Amino acid sequence: MIIILEPGATPAQREELVADLHARGYGVHLSEGVERTIVGVIGTPERDKEGLVEQFEALPFVERVVPILKPYKLVGKAFKPEGTVINVRGVQIGGGTLCVMAGPCTVESPEMLFETAKMVKAQGAHVLRGGAFKPSTSPYSFHGMGEDGLKLLAEARDMTGLPIITEVMDTRDVELVGKYTDIYQIGTRNMTNYSLLREMGTTRKPVMLKRGWASTIEEWLQAAEYIASQGNYEIILCERGIRTFETYTRNTFDINAIAAIKELSHLPIFADPSHGTGKRSLVSAVSLGAVATGADGLMIETHPNPEKALKDGPQSLSFGQFEKLMQDVRPIAQAVGKTL
Amino acid sequence: MIIILEPGATPAQREELVADLHARGYGVHLSEGVERTIVGVIGTPERDKEGLVEQFEALPFVERVVPILKPYKLVGKAFKPEGTVINVRGVQIGGGTLCVMAGPCTVESPEMLFETAKMVKAQGAHVLRGGAFKPSTSPYSFHGMGEDGLKLLAEARDMTGLPIITEVMDTRDVELVGKYTDIYQIGTRNMTNYSLLREMGTTRKPVMLKRGWASTIEEWLQAAEYIASQGNYEIILCERGIRTFETYTRNTFDINAIAAIKELSHLPIFADPSHGTGKRSLVSAVSLGAVATGADGLMIETHPNPEKALKDGPQSLSFGQFEKLMQDVRPIAQAVGKTL
Amino acid sequence: MIIILEPGATPAQREELVADLHARGYGVHLSEGVERTIVGVIGTPERDKEGLVEQFEALPFVERVVPILKPYKLVGKAFKPEGTVINVRGVQIGGGTLCVMAGPCTVESPEMLFETAKMVKAQGAHVLRGGAFKPSTSPYSFHGMGEDGLKLLAEARDMTGLPIITEVMDTRDVELVGKYTDIYQIGTRNMTNYSLLREMGTTRKPVMLKRGWASTIEEWLQAAEYIASQGNYEIILCERGIRTFETYTRNTFDINAIAAIKELSHLPIFADPSHGTGKRSLVSAVSLGAVATGADGLMIETHPNPEKALKDGPQSLSFGQFEKLMQDVRPIAQAVGKTL
Amino acid sequence: MIIILEPGATPAQREELVADLHARGYGVHLSEGVERTIVGVIGTPERDKEGLVEQFEALPFVERVVPILKPYKLVGKAFKPEGTVINVRGVQIGGGTLCVMAGPCTVESPEMLFETAKMVKAQGAHVLRGGAFKPSTSPYSFHGMGEDGLKLLAEARDMTGLPIITEVMDTRDVELVGKYTDIYQIGTRNMTNYSLLREMGTTRKPVMLKRGWASTIEEWLQAAEYIASQGNYEIILCERGIRTFETYTRNTFDINAIAAIKELSHLPIFADPSHGTGKRSLVSAVSLGAVATGADGLMIETHPNPEKALKDGPQSLSFGQFEKLMQDVRPIAQAVGKTL
Repeated sequence: MIIILEPGATPAQREELVADLHARGYGVHLSEGVERTIVGVIGTPERDKEGLVEQFEALPFVERVVPILKPYKLVGKAFKPEGTVINVRGVQIGGGTLCVMAGPCTVESPEMLFETAKMVKAQGAHVLRGGAFKPSTSPYSFHGMGEDGLKLLAEARDMTGLPIITEVMDTRDVELVGKYTDIYQIGTRNMTNYSLLREMGTTRKPVMLKRGWASTIEEWLQAAEYIASQGNYEIILCERGIRTFETYTRNTFDINAIAAIKELSHLPIFADPSHGTGKRSLVSAVSLGAVATGADGLMIETHPNPEKALKDGPQSLSFGQFEKLMQDVRPIAQAVGKTL
Repeated sequence: MIIILEPGATPAQREELVADLHARGYGVHLSEGVERTIVGVIGTPERDKEGLVEQFEALPFVERVVPILKPYKLVGKAFKPEGTVINVRGVQIGGGTLCVMAGPCTVESPEMLFETAKMVKAQGAHVLRGGAFKPSTSPYSFHGMGEDGLKLLAEARDMTGLPIITEVMDTRDVELVGKYTDIYQIGTRNMTNYSLLREMGTTRKPVMLKRGWASTIEEWLQAAEYIASQGNYEIILCERGIRTFETYTRNTFDINAIAAIKELSHLPIFADPSHGTGKRSLVSAVSLGAVATGADGLMIETHPNPEKALKDGPQSLSFGQFEKLMQDVRPIAQAVGKTL
Repeated sequence: MIIILEPGATPAQREELVADLHARGYGVHLSEGVERTIVGVIGTPERDKEGLVEQFEALPFVERVVPILKPYKLVGKAFKPEGTVINVRGVQIGGGTLCVMAGPCTVESPEMLFETAKMVKAQGAHVLRGGAFKPSTSPYSFHGMGEDGLKLLAEARDMTGLPIITEVMDTRDVELVGKYTDIYQIGTRNMTNYSLLREMGTTRKPVMLKRGWASTIEEWLQAAEYIASQGNYEIILCERGIRTFETYTRNTFDINAIAAIKELSHLPIFADPSHGTGKRSLVSAVSLGAVATGADGLMIETHPNPEKALKDGPQSLSFGQFEKLMQDVRPIAQAVGKTL
Repeated sequence: MIIILEPGATPAQREELVADLHARGYGVHLSEGVERTIVGVIGTPERDKEGLVEQFEALPFVERVVPILKPYKLVGKAFKPEGTVINVRGVQIGGGTLCVMAGPCTVESPEMLFETAKMVKAQGAHVLRGGAFKPSTSPYSFHGMGEDGLKLLAEARDMTGLPIITEVMDTRDVELVGKYTDIYQIGTRNMTNYSLLREMGTTRKPVMLKRGWASTIEEWLQAAEYIASQGNYEIILCERGIRTFETYTRNTFDINAIAAIKELSHLPIFADPSHGTGKRSLVSAVSLGAVATGADGLMIETHPNPEKALKDGPQSLSFGQFEKLMQDVRPIAQAVGKTL
């Protein structure tokens, strides 16, 4: 941590600060410049960096505090340089394979789910997605089939052999969802629901953590750190687009984040171009881009009749479009050295 | 709802759409322009507007769907043009009074809480704020005193007569927090935690709903609709700044939203310039602006020793600064016809 | 400047950097922490800070460079703590008065301009605004009357005694516009048109510099520094809203920026709630907020028939609304100690 | 255009509007719904759509106006479905080839320019980039060598046979720059400098139009329409990242925009991941992504000694990194059916 003092800071104030730092067990390096005094803080006896940064910034004679260390540790690259590989019922996530998770936004009926499950399996996808508990902006929208949806997902798994992933939104549902799912999904709206993140840390199943639509990469990694700090290291990150001023697309898919996560963290990083664009016509092109940039996997919405979908129809691929995407992504995966 | 067809839509497709709309009980108004056909949908037999918009947008021959009605109803201006007034232990919120809620970010100890409670009471504030459960970006930060903090808040209420407000973050804590607090607070990170919003709808205590840092005004009102739709109409909105590209301030306080809520909703609207700026030196000036623009109240962080605060020190006012703010806000309140 | 080295930086690299700094005439302060080495750079022999920051950041063994000094000087608070006051034909801008500039977005005809000019004069405004050269997003929109519009503005000045302000968009028009106007206006779209800013620096008339819709406060002050660095210190800043994800309003008026400029710069700061909101119904409320927060003046669009306006009708006040605003703003100005 | 009336609009107001529309030569389609009346406007006798939208929106009894037609025409897909192909000294841009433009951010000296030019030629790049007039946020930074830089670029062209591209920032420099360059570049800061865009429309050389850092895709296409409307159809669009809340990267590269432009326009679309990321370590990965998504070309900054670069060092590739990128991009181009 570096503390930059205001130009008018007095020697007494400086001494007060140094004494405080020493009392907390830090070493101190004073550097008096022409216009500012800079205080280097040496050593890391305390873990709660964030609290300290705020406290020193609150001092009236301090202009700014610059943290040096990253605010996450367990999910950082340095902690496990070789990269995390997760195995879910024989499906490998991370580590040089390209993993495709696909399925409907929401489980609506046995027929549509089973039909979709068979199709994505036939096309070579690895995991079946489908929502049983659905967050909706409007209280009057469909909110999912609940446990009945979970049961159908489990049936579809039995039918196809595909592991399943589904969202959990409420700390009270963690146990119930865990009875059925292979991978928990935390949605963008709950990335800062820290109670739920902590619960994820105590389960022993992999967790896909979607990026909050207005969360920085650093905050996203801190959210992952919540999970890891409770002992669950099997975390999959998923970029799903951020909120910007652009209105032609529903979100702005942050392709930079794919490359950035690869240099900052050892966790696998997925791309969700369905939400990242919000427009069916753009999903495939952006999927290819994400894989070329280094994504470890794709998360794709597909539906037998997108125009009848209860949710997310405009961004769901038809079966024909999904089939085409699976064909197109193969040479790209190959070009970047990934096995599909 | 207006459905705009693609230039190449065929007569058969048009007829299919019209038949579908009739089957759903809608009237239809066709308008063939030079370059586009526009389909006006008449009548509102179904409540779930959102689902329909998405379904029609998913049709391959539809270019765009324009919703006509606002996606909220109970919290809309038209539903209660005279404005909601809430009474909490004799304190009036909304309806021509200016209400000041103040206190520390977080309850840290009996001493600091009681000292602050007495001060804000003496300066004329109406409600005591203080966090017992605190959301933190980092898992390693202080997360509040929990129930012990709630007990201290209740003690401070007994001491000063000020009603109290405190945050609830987890559906499992709603009952516990409700045993102590007078007003529930839903923080910015939980504005899209719909399970928690529903729970708020079933309590019988007022709820302050902070705006999500990247939520539009419309989404915020839909979040309020979640609470209202469960039967709790005592909702206080609070603008606390949105996330933008600007880095000098922690958030961008959206003063437009204060004026916009006044024309869109009957709910009282508060301003939280502590989070809205993130900088102590800007809090007072922006507070005055918010009141002049029409805010029904202020939410202010103040601490006996901001530089010792476990959270939010840089944006907490010292006691002297809070006293000055209360003096300065009086003539502004008067100028806009509000009683303080 | 502080240079933070990568954890893996070698002693040889460190020595190379130190030698380079010495060669450039800087003093160096090395601080070796547990996890990082930090290099404090002492002295400011070179002016072009920005270039250096980038060069050091480009070194492969450097993690980050933290600039200490602000990247502007002439427009900074420290350069002239008492605040700049500008006098234009007897109208005082800054220094404890509230100055209102008002008029139509665009000069459309003699009748509408003269009618508006007389009205704003009668209501107590101080400066007449009106566009002769208008930037438009669409090439097919009205682009202003050009020199004919300038002539009408000059006539309106003769008629009312109000000084005039009008926009210049092209370096080739600076002389022409200068023959008529009292104050140059640089619009939001040209805040980063550095050629134009330099030209403004060589004129001897005041310049109003609107904030770029996606420019930070710091970049805005650097744009002002362009003008000042050429010798023209009579600069008026004008906040006009920034671009965010919110769509209910055309822009998000950044009220924080009003307070921030007051602590960072000595230049007068105006508010333009017409563009800042884009909605007539919100203009007055936000105007009051801006004045309460400390704005030195307002920039308001008003039109005899907003629904006939060739540009910006939806955000232009009718004459009746403008009259009401002038009445409402008086007690607010008084409350913050400003003379209107 | 569709005009949605306020719920309280009177029959007299409706008739007034209809009469006005008829007087302007439009057909009218009235659709009275349960809660709103909707007015469909038929026919397009006037070109200036934007002005009309604003005028109707300014009517007090109008709630909203929904434009139906896109606000650009000449650059729209429908105008030339087969796609624009540009030929510059034998280099093909668009139409199934991948074109790489590379070189230093800024021309600094003959040595560095010639060395870079030879290297990029040897690696298979098609066009040499380099700035002679450079926009800088700070007035104290290096602003380019001016005409001397242009001369060096022309020399490098003679030496290597590569056509050159360089930026023009001032309407007064268009002729001078045109004496040397093969392609004009309009930078992000000047995308809304409409005077300069018009000038570009009257030249007879291709123009690369970078996206404004806070401009929507629609505004960007309207800026291109400015150029086309003056008769110059040889326009190359270039996505270079937009400004968002994320701070880890300098900009957020909008990969969605690559796919969106492909469906909205016939113009070639390039990617500039150097500015789009601002971080050398991310440039190559994002370049691959852009090509996989469908970009017609890349714009890459490379420098013999990035850490000595006068500008943009942190985002410039070393020669070795550029060589690696050219190798890696080949199989991706092949996978999407493009010739490199």
